[in-house]
Amino acid sequence: MNIGLLGFGTVGTGVYEIIYKRKRIFRTLVGDELSISKILIKDINKDRSIKECKNKLTDNPYFILDDPDIDIVIEAIGGIKEAYEYIKYALIKGKHVITANKAVVARHMKELIDLANKNKRAFLYEASVAGGVPIVKPLKQQVTLNDIKEINSILNGTSNFILSKMIKENLDFSQALDIAQKLGYAEADPTDDIDGYDVRRKLAILSTIAFKREIKEEDIYCRGIRTIKAVDIKAIKELGYTVKLLAKALFNENNYYLSVEPNILSKDSFYAKVEDANNLVSIIGNDIGELKFYGAGAGKLPTANAVVSDVLDIIYNNYGSCGINQEEDKLCNNTDLVKDIYYIRISPKYGLNEKVLNLIKEEKIVDKIIKTGENIIFTSKDIDYVKISRFISNIKNFINDEFYAVIR
Amino acid sequence: MNIGLLGFGTVGTGVYEIIYKRKRIFRTLVGDELSISKILIKDINKDRSIKECKNKLTDNPYFILDDPDIDIVIEAIGGIKEAYEYIKYALIKGKHVITANKAVVARHMKELIDLANKNKRAFLYEASVAGGVPIVKPLKQQVTLNDIKEINSILNGTSNFILSKMIKENLDFSQALDIAQKLGYAEADPTDDIDGYDVRRKLAILSTIAFKREIKEEDIYCRGIRTIKAVDIKAIKELGYTVKLLAKALFNENNYYLSVEPNILSKDSFYAKVEDANNLVSIIGNDIGELKFYGAGAGKLPTANAVVSDVLDIIYNNYGSCGINQEEDKLCNNTDLVKDIYYIRISPKYGLNEKVLNLIKEEKIVDKIIKTGENIIFTSKDIDYVKISRFISNIKNFINDEFYAVIR
Repeated sequence: MNIGLLGFGTVGTGVYEIIYKRKRIFRTLVGDELSISKILIKDINKDRSIKECKNKLTDNPYFILDDPDIDIVIEAIGGIKEAYEYIKYALIKGKHVITANKAVVARHMKELIDLANKNKRAFLYEASVAGGVPIVKPLKQQVTLNDIKEINSILNGTSNFILSKMIKENLDFSQALDIAQKLGYAEADPTDDIDGYDVRRKLAILSTIAFKREIKEEDIYCRGIRTIKAVDIKAIKELGYTVKLLAKALFNENNYYLSVEPNILSKDSFYAKVEDANNLVSIIGNDIGELKFYGAGAGKLPTANAVVSDVLDIIYNNYGSCGINQEEDKLCNNTDLVKDIYYIRISPKYGLNEKVLNLIKEEKIVDKIIKTGENIIFTSKDIDYVKISRFISNIKNFINDEFYAVIR
Repeated sequence: MNIGLLGFGTVGTGVYEIIYKRKRIFRTLVGDELSISKILIKDINKDRSIKECKNKLTDNPYFILDDPDIDIVIEAIGGIKEAYEYIKYALIKGKHVITANKAVVARHMKELIDLANKNKRAFLYEASVAGGVPIVKPLKQQVTLNDIKEINSILNGTSNFILSKMIKENLDFSQALDIAQKLGYAEADPTDDIDGYDVRRKLAILSTIAFKREIKEEDIYCRGIRTIKAVDIKAIKELGYTVKLLAKALFNENNYYLSVEPNILSKDSFYAKVEDANNLVSIIGNDIGELKFYGAGAGKLPTANAVVSDVLDIIYNNYGSCGINQEEDKLCNNTDLVKDIYYIRISPKYGLNEKVLNLIKEEKIVDKIIKTGENIIFTSKDIDYVKISRFISNIKNFINDEFYAVIR
């Protein structure tokens, strides 16, 4: 069995290492050698730490995609456009495809699954959600036997690391982000991680599997952690709580509601114990009750381990369709499903801002004032997301991002 | 595809319910009907809540085991001798077998797996460990890609419920057991659950898979929660900790150490958050790091869900050998792997007992005295299990179970 590896960065080299470390086991399983026969890289002249792969390197993807001896293509180049094109091409050429690329999966899931099914090949993406935590496959299995009612999850290591730091050391978001970037936990442009887009992609993938319907990123209400400050963390800690960026999905008959938002949680909750770059996914099914899956949400070897577990499933011929419902049922993104109480801070720059105060009054959302003065902090009534998002976009007309925070 | 169901108690009726509830899905998967064609019961005349199964009932196991139209036998009668015989007979007759019976699996795992492999049939037992939590299959998958170094787990709902009650309401063990029995969380004879034997079976199964060696129940050091009293809980809570019955396995080269013991834990640990009849299994692999699996450790539908997930694996032709190592490698149950500090309480009945005091002095295990008087409470030095178990068996010569407690 031959593998073509697209990309030789963190995940790609991890996959290479694991497959060669486990050579003996794979030989027993496959009956034959399992070999990475070609590797796509950008720069053929770059010096690489893995020397023995030199004669396998190519900078032409079609040397791999058109090679009839290659059975499995592992996409690990990242990005969207090219990755999507190569995956599609490989499936059309009758190859099994494995990817860790959540952006491509979230955007093209249905099309690529349909294409794989049509060609009787596997399209697997365990590593695209929650890194090393086995969740895609267990969820697919549970979905056959259960109606999934709910998903609650911590799916982004970067923002979880930043929030942990802020809570432990009473830092502002910007200070914690700075540390995260220095330690390599956050990228130079951290937008995807801290504004929730990375989590939203993962939630789109999980809910598409769980609800057997195509759920798009755009269907998910999404707010990140950018506007949270030390003053918020302090107030929340004083109330005896903590903050996590949670991805939630609710499903009930034909109504669903999906959100990515910072959430206030009891310090005693399971979620509160998830530190640094770890992930936690909870799924609730009608018969199975609540299952929780926890582990490393990122990292070279955990992620590569998930990719190679997909290779095993192809070897064992153990891959099915995801079972996205083809029926045109009336799905409704129903905001009535969820109402909640929000923590809100407003910090008008130059003392009290009349317009902001009027806005708060007009919206009639205040339940309890916690603090006044430089920072006005209050808890809202039990309101739905239409109300809170209208409130947030109105607030934005008057003050900058740094002068407010809204936490569910 | 036809299923023969042995036993129609809690698990058996649960399996029946789920399979009929999911009829439509199974029809899509199997292409044909998936049907429970015969059910073994003890009393053919007993009135049953599920009426439509009446013509399927039999009190003769061989009507099922010898029926050439039955493809899968699900054993749900419990007990050891007959269950073992029926499973073996079914495998010899070329049927796939699924069981939730941890006692049989722990005792006969290697023999039954070998028999199933020889006959090219499945022998699956997902429900035998941690009820509804998918752990057997994920562990089998990780084992191929990882060297498993460690397992840490809460695997018994009854003792976990009792400990939770004791901690929340400051009760003695006997009071909490009484409540557990009244609520149906503990059986009339609770020995297996509270003395750790049930957990030991589950740990034997998990470590056999994880370490690819046949691990026997007798290889596992085992103490339950019977001697813990309200005074212990009080002292431990005052120190800022909590207590859980943990099953642990350590593996390093050819050395291993396995134990079932009550353990003192930080109130902030994940394990401390596992309440009532829930289970938690953590596995640590060299590449994957730590994975945690959490869910309902018992209950009709969660357990039946796990059984039916094994049916799915048979339908998908997705079952492999467990891969118990056939080599005669020098395995060593090495107590040097683990040293730990123990909490010890001695309560001699009539004031201070000279013999007990002398014993404590002789063994030189005391590190810090926490309390004297009616109850002598101290923490031990960092000692291994040989020393602590010799101490416990010596103590037993002088005082009854109710007058001491040892918690790791």
